[in-house]
Amino acid sequence: MAERAVVLLSGGLDSTTCLALALRDGRTVHPISFAYGQLHEAELGAATHVARHYGIPPERHRVVDLGRAISGSALTGQGAVPLDRDAAAIGGDIPVTYVPARNLVFLAFAMSYAEAVGAGEVHIGVNALDYSGYPDCRPEFIRAFAEAARLGTRVGVEGRPIEVRTPLVDLGKAAIVRLGAEVGVPFALTHSCYLGQRPACGRCDACRLRIEGFRAAGLRDPLPYAVEVAW
Amino acid sequence: MAERAVVLLSGGLDSTTCLALALRDGRTVHPISFAYGQLHEAELGAATHVARHYGIPPERHRVVDLGRAISGSALTGQGAVPLDRDAAAIGGDIPVTYVPARNLVFLAFAMSYAEAVGAGEVHIGVNALDYSGYPDCRPEFIRAFAEAARLGTRVGVEGRPIEVRTPLVDLGKAAIVRLGAEVGVPFALTHSCYLGQRPACGRCDACRLRIEGFRAAGLRDPLPYAVEVAW
Repeated sequence: MAERAVVLLSGGLDSTTCLALALRDGRTVHPISFAYGQLHEAELGAATHVARHYGIPPERHRVVDLGRAISGSALTGQGAVPLDRDAAAIGGDIPVTYVPARNLVFLAFAMSYAEAVGAGEVHIGVNALDYSGYPDCRPEFIRAFAEAARLGTRVGVEGRPIEVRTPLVDLGKAAIVRLGAEVGVPFALTHSCYLGQRPACGRCDACRLRIEGFRAAGLRDPLPYAVEVAW
Repeated sequence: MAERAVVLLSGGLDSTTCLALALRDGRTVHPISFAYGQLHEAELGAATHVARHYGIPPERHRVVDLGRAISGSALTGQGAVPLDRDAAAIGGDIPVTYVPARNLVFLAFAMSYAEAVGAGEVHIGVNALDYSGYPDCRPEFIRAFAEAARLGTRVGVEGRPIEVRTPLVDLGKAAIVRLGAEVGVPFALTHSCYLGQRPACGRCDACRLRIEGFRAAGLRDPLPYAVEVAW
Protein backbone atom coordinates (compact mmCIF):
# COMPACT_ATOMS: atom_id res chain seq x y z
CA MET A 1 0.00 0.00 0.00
CA ALA A 2 1.26 3.46 -0.85
CA GLU A 3 2.54 5.55 2.05
CA ARG A 4 0.02 8.17 3.04
CA ALA A 5 1.13 11.77 3.36
CA VAL A 6 -0.74 14.81 4.64
CA VAL A 7 0.25 17.82 2.53
CA LEU A 8 -0.38 21.39 3.65
CA LEU A 9 -2.02 22.98 0.64
CA SER A 10 -2.65 26.72 0.52
CA GLY A 11 -3.14 26.64 -3.23
CA GLY A 12 -0.03 28.74 -3.78
CA LEU A 13 3.03 27.98 -5.88
CA ASP A 14 5.07 26.31 -3.15
CA SER A 15 2.43 24.08 -1.58
CA THR A 16 1.14 22.99 -4.99
CA THR A 17 4.66 22.04 -6.05
CA CYS A 18 5.00 20.19 -2.77
CA LEU A 19 1.82 18.25 -3.48
CA ALA A 20 2.94 17.46 -7.04
CA LEU A 21 6.23 16.05 -5.70
CA ALA A 22 4.42 13.87 -3.15
CA LEU A 23 2.25 12.43 -5.92
CA ARG A 24 5.28 11.91 -8.16
CA ASP A 25 6.88 9.99 -5.31
CA GLY A 26 3.91 7.66 -5.09
CA ARG A 27 2.27 8.97 -1.95
CA THR A 28 -1.45 8.74 -1.30
CA VAL A 29 -1.99 12.42 -0.57
CA HIS A 30 -4.37 13.86 2.02
CA PRO A 31 -4.29 17.64 1.51
CA ILE A 32 -5.24 19.98 4.33
CA SER A 33 -6.19 23.65 3.86
CA PHE A 34 -7.28 26.42 6.21
CA ALA A 35 -9.76 29.26 6.18
CA TYR A 36 -8.71 31.79 8.82
CA GLY A 37 -10.27 34.98 7.61
CA GLN A 38 -7.25 35.65 5.39
CA LEU A 39 -7.69 38.50 2.91
CA HIS A 40 -6.66 36.04 0.26
CA GLU A 41 -9.32 33.45 0.99
CA ALA A 42 -9.31 33.07 -2.79
CA GLU A 43 -6.41 30.72 -2.16
CA LEU A 44 -8.88 28.17 -0.80
CA GLY A 45 -10.57 28.09 -4.17
CA ALA A 46 -7.17 27.55 -5.72
CA ALA A 47 -6.47 24.70 -3.29
CA THR A 48 -9.73 23.04 -4.29
CA HIS A 49 -8.99 23.45 -8.01
CA VAL A 50 -5.49 22.05 -7.54
CA ALA A 51 -6.77 19.03 -5.59
CA ARG A 52 -9.40 18.39 -8.25
CA HIS A 53 -6.79 18.75 -11.00
CA TYR A 54 -4.84 15.93 -9.38
CA GLY A 55 -7.91 13.75 -8.98
CA ILE A 56 -7.84 13.75 -5.20
CA PRO A 57 -11.20 12.62 -3.81
CA PRO A 58 -12.88 15.57 -2.05
CA GLU A 59 -13.36 13.52 1.13
CA ARG A 60 -9.57 13.23 1.43
CA HIS A 61 -9.11 17.03 1.26
CA ARG A 62 -9.66 18.41 4.74
CA VAL A 63 -10.59 22.10 4.77
CA VAL A 64 -10.48 23.49 8.29
CA ASP A 65 -12.46 26.63 9.04
CA LEU A 66 -10.73 28.45 11.89
CA GLY A 67 -13.11 31.38 11.83
CA ARG A 68 -11.32 34.19 13.64
CA ALA A 69 -9.37 31.94 15.98
CA ILE A 70 -6.02 33.22 14.74
CA SER A 71 -5.61 36.93 14.23
CA GLY A 72 -3.30 39.87 14.69
CA SER A 73 -1.89 40.17 11.18
CA ALA A 74 -2.21 42.38 8.13
CA LEU A 75 -3.35 39.21 6.37
CA THR A 76 -6.31 38.93 8.73
CA GLY A 77 -7.27 42.57 8.39
CA GLN A 78 -5.19 44.21 11.14
CA GLY A 79 -3.17 46.83 9.25
CA ALA A 80 -2.31 47.26 5.60
CA VAL A 81 -0.46 44.76 3.42
CA PRO A 82 2.79 46.42 2.26
CA LEU A 83 3.19 46.94 -1.46
CA ASP A 84 6.08 47.49 -3.87
CA ARG A 85 8.82 46.31 -1.51
CA ASP A 86 12.04 45.22 -3.15
CA ALA A 87 13.71 41.85 -2.67
CA ALA A 88 16.09 43.19 0.00
CA ALA A 89 13.22 44.45 2.15
CA ILE A 90 11.24 41.24 1.70
CA GLY A 91 12.82 38.63 3.94
CA GLY A 92 14.51 41.21 6.15
CA ASP A 93 12.50 41.95 9.28
CA ILE A 94 9.45 39.87 10.11
CA PRO A 95 6.72 41.58 8.05
CA VAL A 96 3.28 42.76 9.19
CA THR A 97 1.85 39.88 7.17
CA TYR A 98 3.21 37.54 9.84
CA VAL A 99 0.26 35.63 11.35
CA PRO A 100 0.85 34.70 15.01
CA ALA A 101 1.89 31.05 15.28
CA ARG A 102 0.23 30.18 11.98
CA ASN A 103 2.44 27.28 10.95
CA LEU A 104 2.40 25.98 14.51
CA VAL A 105 -1.40 25.80 14.28
CA PHE A 106 -1.41 24.43 10.72
CA LEU A 107 1.20 21.76 11.45
CA ALA A 108 -0.60 20.72 14.64
CA PHE A 109 -3.76 20.07 12.61
CA ALA A 110 -1.75 18.28 9.94
CA MET A 111 -0.26 16.02 12.64
CA SER A 112 -3.69 15.28 14.08
CA TYR A 113 -5.02 14.49 10.60
CA ALA A 114 -2.00 12.30 9.80
CA GLU A 115 -2.37 10.36 13.02
CA ALA A 116 -6.11 9.89 12.49
CA VAL A 117 -5.68 8.51 8.94
CA GLY A 118 -2.50 6.57 9.59
CA ALA A 119 -0.23 8.76 7.45
CA GLY A 120 3.47 8.47 8.20
CA GLU A 121 4.43 11.86 6.78
CA VAL A 122 3.42 15.50 6.78
CA HIS A 123 4.75 17.60 3.88
CA ILE A 124 5.02 21.38 4.06
CA GLY A 125 6.31 23.66 1.31
CA VAL A 126 8.32 26.08 3.42
CA ASN A 127 11.51 27.48 1.97
CA ALA A 128 14.18 29.38 3.77
CA LEU A 129 15.61 31.07 0.67
CA ASP A 130 13.69 33.85 -1.09
CA TYR A 131 11.19 33.62 1.72
CA SER A 132 9.19 36.28 3.45
CA GLY A 133 10.99 36.51 6.78
CA TYR A 134 8.53 34.34 8.68
CA PRO A 135 10.10 32.57 11.68
CA ASP A 136 7.78 29.61 11.25
CA CYS A 137 9.23 28.80 7.82
CA ARG A 138 12.73 28.12 9.13
CA PRO A 139 14.16 24.60 9.29
CA GLU A 140 15.04 24.96 12.99
CA PHE A 141 11.37 25.58 13.75
CA ILE A 142 10.27 22.59 11.69
CA ARG A 143 12.78 20.32 13.43
CA ALA A 144 11.65 21.48 16.88
CA PHE A 145 8.02 21.03 15.90
CA ALA A 146 8.62 17.47 14.70
CA GLU A 147 10.26 16.66 18.03
CA ALA A 148 7.33 18.11 20.00
CA ALA A 149 4.92 16.14 17.83
CA ARG A 150 6.89 12.96 18.39
CA LEU A 151 6.61 13.39 22.15
CA GLY A 152 2.97 14.46 22.10
CA THR A 153 1.34 11.84 19.87
CA ARG A 154 0.45 8.20 20.30
CA VAL A 155 2.34 7.16 17.18
CA GLY A 156 5.43 9.05 18.34
CA VAL A 157 5.40 7.33 21.70
CA GLU A 158 4.77 3.96 20.09
CA GLY A 159 7.89 4.41 17.99
CA ARG A 160 6.48 5.38 14.60
CA PRO A 161 6.83 9.17 14.72
CA ILE A 162 5.31 11.08 11.84
CA GLU A 163 8.01 12.59 9.67
CA VAL A 164 7.77 16.27 8.71
CA ARG A 165 9.15 16.71 5.20
CA THR A 166 10.16 20.03 3.70
CA PRO A 167 11.09 19.20 0.11
CA LEU A 168 11.50 22.86 -0.90
CA VAL A 169 13.40 24.10 2.11
CA ASP A 170 16.74 24.61 0.36
CA LEU A 171 15.34 25.99 -2.88
CA GLY A 172 15.01 29.57 -4.04
CA LYS A 173 11.88 30.70 -5.85
CA ALA A 174 13.41 30.25 -9.30
CA ALA A 175 14.40 26.67 -8.49
CA ILE A 176 10.89 25.98 -7.21
CA VAL A 177 9.38 27.34 -10.42
CA ARG A 178 11.74 25.19 -12.51
CA LEU A 179 10.96 22.12 -10.43
CA GLY A 180 7.23 22.86 -10.59
CA ALA A 181 7.43 23.17 -14.38
CA GLU A 182 9.32 19.88 -14.54
CA VAL A 183 6.64 17.98 -12.65
CA GLY A 184 3.79 19.69 -14.47
CA VAL A 185 2.38 21.97 -11.78
CA PRO A 186 -0.75 23.69 -13.13
CA PHE A 187 0.58 27.20 -12.38
CA ALA A 188 -2.55 28.84 -13.80
CA LEU A 189 -4.66 27.23 -11.09
CA THR A 190 -2.49 28.39 -8.21
CA HIS A 191 -2.92 31.59 -6.26
CA SER A 192 -0.31 33.65 -4.41
CA CYS A 193 -1.52 37.28 -4.13
CA TYR A 194 -1.92 38.42 -0.51
CA LEU A 195 -4.75 40.74 -1.49
CA GLY A 196 -6.69 37.83 -2.96
CA GLN A 197 -7.09 39.67 -6.23
CA ARG A 198 -7.47 38.16 -9.65
CA PRO A 199 -5.80 39.47 -11.75
CA ALA A 200 -3.13 39.28 -9.05
CA CYS A 201 -2.01 42.69 -7.74
CA GLY A 202 1.65 42.13 -8.69
CA ARG A 203 2.71 44.45 -5.88
CA CYS A 204 2.46 42.53 -2.58
CA ASP A 205 5.42 40.50 -1.27
CA ALA A 206 3.86 37.23 -2.41
CA CYS A 207 3.29 38.47 -5.98
CA ARG A 208 6.74 40.03 -6.17
CA LEU A 209 8.54 36.90 -4.98
CA ARG A 210 6.52 34.83 -7.41
CA ILE A 211 7.14 37.10 -10.39
CA GLU A 212 10.85 37.27 -9.59
CA GLY A 213 10.93 33.47 -9.36
CA PHE A 214 9.41 33.02 -12.80
CA ARG A 215 11.69 35.69 -14.30
CA ALA A 216 14.80 34.14 -12.81
CA ALA A 217 13.68 30.73 -14.05
CA GLY A 218 13.27 32.18 -17.55
CA LEU A 219 9.58 31.33 -17.60
CA ARG A 220 6.42 33.33 -17.95
CA ASP A 221 3.80 33.03 -15.21
CA PRO A 222 0.45 32.17 -16.83
CA LEU A 223 -1.39 34.11 -14.11
CA PRO A 224 -2.87 37.46 -15.13
CA TYR A 225 -1.46 40.47 -13.22
CA ALA A 226 -3.02 43.88 -12.70
CA VAL A 227 0.35 45.55 -13.40
CA GLU A 228 2.57 45.36 -16.46
CA VAL A 229 5.21 42.64 -15.95
CA ALA A 230 8.32 42.60 -18.16
CA TRP A 231 8.78 38.88 -18.76
CA MET B 1 0.30 46.48 34.27
CA ALA B 2 -0.50 42.91 35.25
CA GLU B 3 1.15 40.19 33.20
CA ARG B 4 -1.30 38.67 30.77
CA ALA B 5 -1.68 34.90 30.66
CA VAL B 6 -3.63 32.69 28.29
CA VAL B 7 -5.10 29.78 30.26
CA LEU B 8 -6.40 26.63 28.59
CA LEU B 9 -9.80 26.13 30.15
CA SER B 10 -11.79 22.97 29.52
CA GLY B 11 -14.03 23.65 32.50
CA GLY B 12 -12.73 20.58 34.32
CA LEU B 13 -11.15 20.33 37.74
CA ASP B 14 -7.54 20.77 36.63
CA SER B 15 -7.93 23.65 34.20
CA THR B 16 -10.24 25.52 36.57
CA THR B 17 -7.68 25.17 39.37
CA CYS B 18 -5.04 26.36 36.94
CA LEU B 19 -7.11 29.44 36.15
CA ALA B 20 -7.75 30.14 39.84
CA LEU B 21 -4.00 30.00 40.52
CA ALA B 22 -3.26 32.41 37.67
CA LEU B 23 -5.78 34.88 39.09
CA ARG B 24 -4.38 34.45 42.60
CA ASP B 25 -0.95 35.25 41.19
CA GLY B 26 -2.24 38.52 39.75
CA ARG B 27 -2.40 37.60 36.11
CA THR B 28 -4.85 39.16 33.68
CA VAL B 29 -6.31 35.93 32.36
CA HIS B 30 -7.39 35.23 28.80
CA PRO B 31 -9.06 31.81 28.85
CA ILE B 32 -9.26 29.71 25.69
CA SER B 33 -11.63 26.77 25.21
CA PHE B 34 -12.35 24.40 22.34
CA ALA B 35 -15.37 22.74 20.78
CA TYR B 36 -14.20 19.74 18.79
CA GLY B 37 -17.25 17.53 18.69
CA GLN B 38 -16.31 16.00 22.05
CA LEU B 39 -19.00 13.84 23.63
CA HIS B 40 -18.59 15.99 26.69
CA GLU B 41 -19.27 19.30 24.99
CA ALA B 42 -21.05 20.07 28.27
CA GLU B 43 -17.57 21.03 29.47
CA LEU B 44 -17.82 24.16 27.32
CA GLY B 45 -20.81 25.27 29.36
CA ALA B 46 -18.75 24.64 32.48
CA ALA B 47 -15.88 26.70 31.06
CA THR B 48 -18.27 29.59 30.44
CA HIS B 49 -19.74 29.35 33.94
CA VAL B 50 -16.27 29.24 35.47
CA ALA B 51 -15.09 32.26 33.49
CA ARG B 52 -18.22 34.16 34.50
CA HIS B 53 -17.76 33.14 38.14
CA TYR B 54 -14.34 34.79 38.04
CA GLY B 55 -15.67 37.93 36.39
CA ILE B 56 -13.68 37.47 33.19
CA PRO B 57 -15.14 39.65 30.44
CA PRO B 58 -16.68 37.39 27.77
CA GLU B 59 -14.64 39.11 25.04
CA ARG B 60 -11.45 37.88 26.72
CA HIS B 61 -12.65 34.25 26.68
CA ARG B 62 -11.84 32.80 23.27
CA VAL B 63 -13.97 29.79 22.36
CA VAL B 64 -12.63 28.08 19.25
CA ASP B 65 -14.99 25.89 17.27
CA LEU B 66 -12.92 23.23 15.52
CA GLY B 67 -15.91 21.45 14.03
CA ARG B 68 -14.71 17.99 13.08
CA ALA B 69 -11.13 19.04 12.31
CA ILE B 70 -9.67 16.74 14.93
CA SER B 71 -11.04 13.23 15.18
CA GLY B 72 -10.16 9.60 15.63
CA SER B 73 -10.98 9.19 19.32
CA ALA B 74 -13.62 7.61 21.52
CA LEU B 75 -14.16 11.15 22.80
CA THR B 76 -15.14 12.29 19.32
CA GLY B 77 -17.46 9.35 18.72
CA GLN B 78 -15.09 6.76 17.24
CA GLY B 79 -15.53 3.79 19.58
CA ALA B 80 -16.85 3.45 23.10
CA VAL B 81 -15.57 5.28 26.18
CA PRO B 82 -14.29 2.64 28.66
CA LEU B 83 -16.08 2.41 31.98
CA ASP B 84 -15.28 1.06 35.45
CA ARG B 85 -11.52 0.85 34.94
CA ASP B 86 -9.47 0.79 38.11
CA ALA B 87 -6.64 3.18 38.91
CA ALA B 88 -3.96 0.75 37.70
CA ALA B 89 -5.57 0.45 34.25
CA ILE B 90 -6.09 4.20 33.97
CA GLY B 91 -2.73 5.72 33.17
CA GLY B 92 -1.31 2.45 31.85
CA ASP B 93 -1.55 2.21 28.05
CA ILE B 94 -2.67 5.19 26.03
CA PRO B 95 -6.47 4.92 26.22
CA VAL B 96 -8.99 5.04 23.36
CA THR B 97 -10.01 8.45 24.68
CA TYR B 98 -6.70 9.79 23.35
CA VAL B 99 -7.48 12.50 20.76
CA PRO B 100 -4.81 12.70 18.04
CA ALA B 101 -2.48 15.61 18.73
CA ARG B 102 -5.09 17.41 20.83
CA ASN B 103 -2.79 19.34 23.14
CA LEU B 104 -0.51 20.15 20.21
CA VAL B 105 -3.49 21.80 18.50
CA PHE B 106 -4.78 23.45 21.69
CA LEU B 107 -1.37 24.81 22.69
CA ALA B 108 -0.73 26.10 19.17
CA PHE B 109 -3.94 28.14 19.36
CA ALA B 110 -3.06 29.30 22.86
CA MET B 111 0.32 30.51 21.56
CA SER B 112 -1.30 32.35 18.68
CA TYR B 113 -3.80 33.97 21.06
CA ALA B 114 -1.03 34.88 23.52
CA GLU B 115 1.08 36.45 20.81
CA ALA B 116 -1.88 38.38 19.39
CA VAL B 117 -2.84 39.88 22.80
CA GLY B 118 0.70 40.36 24.08
CA ALA B 119 0.51 37.71 26.80
CA GLY B 120 3.85 36.48 28.10
CA GLU B 121 2.57 33.16 29.41
CA VAL B 122 0.40 30.21 28.50
CA HIS B 123 -0.86 28.10 31.42
CA ILE B 124 -2.01 24.51 31.00
CA GLY B 125 -3.30 22.23 33.75
CA VAL B 126 -1.61 18.99 32.70
CA ASN B 127 -0.42 16.66 35.40
CA ALA B 128 1.83 13.68 35.03
CA LEU B 129 0.69 11.92 38.22
CA ASP B 130 -2.76 10.30 38.43
CA TYR B 131 -3.16 11.17 34.79
CA SER B 132 -4.88 9.34 31.98
CA GLY B 133 -1.87 8.06 30.04
CA TYR B 134 -1.97 10.78 27.40
CA PRO B 135 1.43 11.44 25.84
CA ASP B 136 0.58 15.12 25.35
CA CYS B 137 0.26 15.67 29.10
CA ARG B 138 3.89 14.81 29.83
CA PRO B 139 6.44 17.47 30.80
CA GLU B 140 8.84 16.39 28.05
CA PHE B 141 6.17 17.15 25.48
CA ILE B 142 5.42 20.53 27.03
CA ARG B 143 9.11 21.46 27.03
CA ALA B 144 9.54 20.45 23.40
CA PHE B 145 6.42 22.36 22.45
CA ALA B 146 7.65 25.53 24.16
CA GLU B 147 10.91 25.27 22.23
CA ALA B 148 9.10 24.84 18.90
CA ALA B 149 6.90 27.82 19.76
CA ARG B 150 9.93 29.91 20.63
CA LEU B 151 11.46 29.21 17.23
CA GLY B 152 8.22 29.65 15.30
CA THR B 153 6.85 32.92 16.67
CA ARG B 154 7.79 36.54 16.25
CA VAL B 155 8.04 37.12 20.00
CA GLY B 156 10.28 34.07 20.37
CA VAL B 157 12.64 35.28 17.66
CA GLU B 158 12.64 38.78 19.09
CA GLY B 159 13.79 37.39 22.41
CA ARG B 160 10.62 37.41 24.50
CA PRO B 161 9.48 33.81 24.16
CA ILE B 162 6.11 32.97 25.63
CA GLU B 163 6.53 30.79 28.69
CA VAL B 164 4.44 27.63 28.99
CA ARG B 165 3.55 27.07 32.65
CA THR B 166 2.29 23.81 34.08
CA PRO B 167 1.49 24.62 37.72
CA LEU B 168 -0.12 21.22 38.37
CA VAL B 169 2.41 19.01 36.63
CA ASP B 170 3.90 17.46 39.77
CA LEU B 171 0.63 17.09 41.68
CA GLY B 172 -1.59 14.06 42.09
CA LYS B 173 -5.37 14.45 41.92
CA ALA B 174 -5.75 14.65 45.70
CA ALA B 175 -3.21 17.46 45.91
CA ILE B 176 -5.00 19.29 43.09
CA VAL B 177 -8.32 18.98 44.92
CA ARG B 178 -6.73 20.28 48.13
CA LEU B 179 -5.08 23.16 46.29
CA GLY B 180 -8.32 23.93 44.48
CA ALA B 181 -10.23 24.00 47.77
CA GLU B 182 -7.57 26.30 49.23
CA VAL B 183 -7.93 28.87 46.45
CA GLY B 184 -11.72 28.58 46.38
CA VAL B 185 -12.31 26.76 43.10
CA PRO B 186 -16.08 26.53 42.48
CA PHE B 187 -16.04 22.73 42.13
CA ALA B 188 -19.79 22.57 41.58
CA LEU B 189 -19.42 24.57 38.35
CA THR B 190 -16.74 22.34 36.88
CA HIS B 191 -17.33 19.35 34.65
CA SER B 192 -15.17 16.27 34.14
CA CYS B 193 -17.35 13.36 32.91
CA TYR B 194 -16.26 12.07 29.49
CA LEU B 195 -19.82 11.15 28.63
CA GLY B 196 -20.95 14.71 29.21
CA GLN B 197 -23.62 13.55 31.62
CA ARG B 198 -25.07 15.48 34.53
CA PRO B 199 -25.36 13.84 37.03
CA ALA B 200 -21.85 12.70 36.09
CA CYS B 201 -21.64 9.01 35.16
CA GLY B 202 -19.10 8.22 37.88
CA ARG B 203 -17.73 5.37 35.76
CA CYS B 204 -15.51 6.86 33.04
CA ASP B 205 -11.79 7.43 33.65
CA ALA B 206 -12.33 11.16 34.20
CA CYS B 207 -15.05 10.63 36.80
CA ARG B 208 -13.10 7.90 38.57
CA LEU B 209 -9.89 9.93 38.80
CA ARG B 210 -11.88 12.89 40.07
CA ILE B 211 -13.79 10.88 42.70
CA GLU B 212 -10.57 9.21 43.88
CA GLY B 213 -8.95 12.63 44.13
CA PHE B 214 -11.68 14.02 46.35
CA ARG B 215 -11.73 10.88 48.50
CA ALA B 216 -7.97 10.92 48.98
CA ALA B 217 -8.15 14.61 49.84
CA GLY B 218 -10.80 13.84 52.45
CA LEU B 219 -13.32 16.07 50.71
CA ARG B 220 -16.71 15.49 49.20
CA ASP B 221 -17.24 16.45 45.55
CA PRO B 222 -20.30 18.72 45.34
CA LEU B 223 -21.10 17.34 41.86
CA PRO B 224 -24.03 14.95 41.63
CA TYR B 225 -23.14 11.44 40.38
CA ALA B 226 -25.39 8.84 38.78
CA VAL B 227 -23.80 6.11 40.92
CA GLU B 228 -23.56 5.79 44.66
CA VAL B 229 -20.23 7.19 45.85
CA ALA B 230 -18.93 6.28 49.32
CA TRP B 231 -17.42 9.57 50.45
